[in-house]
Amino acid sequence: MTEMTGFLRDLLDQVRADDAYGQLGRFSDERLLAPFVVTKEERRKIPASCDLEPATEARLRCFYQAVAGAIEKATGAFSTTVLDINHEGFGRAIVFAGRLVVLDDALRDVQRFGFDSLDKLAARGESLVINAAKIAERFPEVARDDS
Amino acid sequence: MTEMTGFLRDLLDQVRADDAYGQLGRFSDERLLAPFVVTKEERRKIPASCDLEPATEARLRCFYQAVAGAIEKATGAFSTTVLDINHEGFGRAIVFAGRLVVLDDALRDVQRFGFDSLDKLAARGESLVINAAKIAERFPEVARDDS
Repeated sequence: MTEMTGFLRDLLDQVRADDAYGQLGRFSDERLLAPFVVTKEERRKIPASCDLEPATEARLRCFYQAVAGAIEKATGAFSTTVLDINHEGFGRAIVFAGRLVVLDDALRDVQRFGFDSLDKLAARGESLVINAAKIAERFPEVARDDS
Repeated sequence: MTEMTGFLRDLLDQVRADDAYGQLGRFSDERLLAPFVVTKEERRKIPASCDLEPATEARLRCFYQAVAGAIEKATGAFSTTVLDINHEGFGRAIVFAGRLVVLDDALRDVQRFGFDSLDKLAARGESLVINAAKIAERFPEVARDDS
């Protein structure tokens, strides 16, 4: 069992934070992150014409909330996630700090949300956090505006 | 039949823009805005414990998109609406211009979305637009950032 660090650690914290009744307490870190890994072959088998499953939507939200949490740690600015997805799996994910939009992802076919591997998942999360932190650095006053 | 002006005009434009097949073409302006008016008594009769109806969600989205459209006209900055509502009718409406969040509304019991009168509807829309325009004036560079 490897120790999870960086973004995977933030994501695990978020998964466990969502687990209000401690039902996931007995599961290992690897087990909790497993649903985020969806290979290309598995992805192809998920029909994108079907309605979005609640579990997939919850996982997507969890991912962006972990990103927002990591942005908050990196910038010190309070960050919020807003997810606007229609039942067909198209939509948008926004993270804003103060009044500043630090992340704006167009989403499609989110029925197939997942990453090829834990490494890819970590890399994607970390790259989103780094980009967001750069934007927050450009407009520090707006990222801290709480009017 | 009175001529609709100001925010009600923007809202009508949005309602008609959503009407891709022209099915609403034969209806008067008053008829199209009627569903936005929900009296206190009517509101009380709508159970907030039920799932959000798609028609109500569409109306809510239409309202905030009209607000975003009016903000765009007032500020010249391209504006986007993001709506994050759970099936229980709680959530958040965001409008951002460039990278600037110019509107952030907490929503609850949106099953009961509606206004006491057309005047109240117009007043609410206009006040949201004016506030948003003030925020855009404070951070003009961010409101026009398209990076």
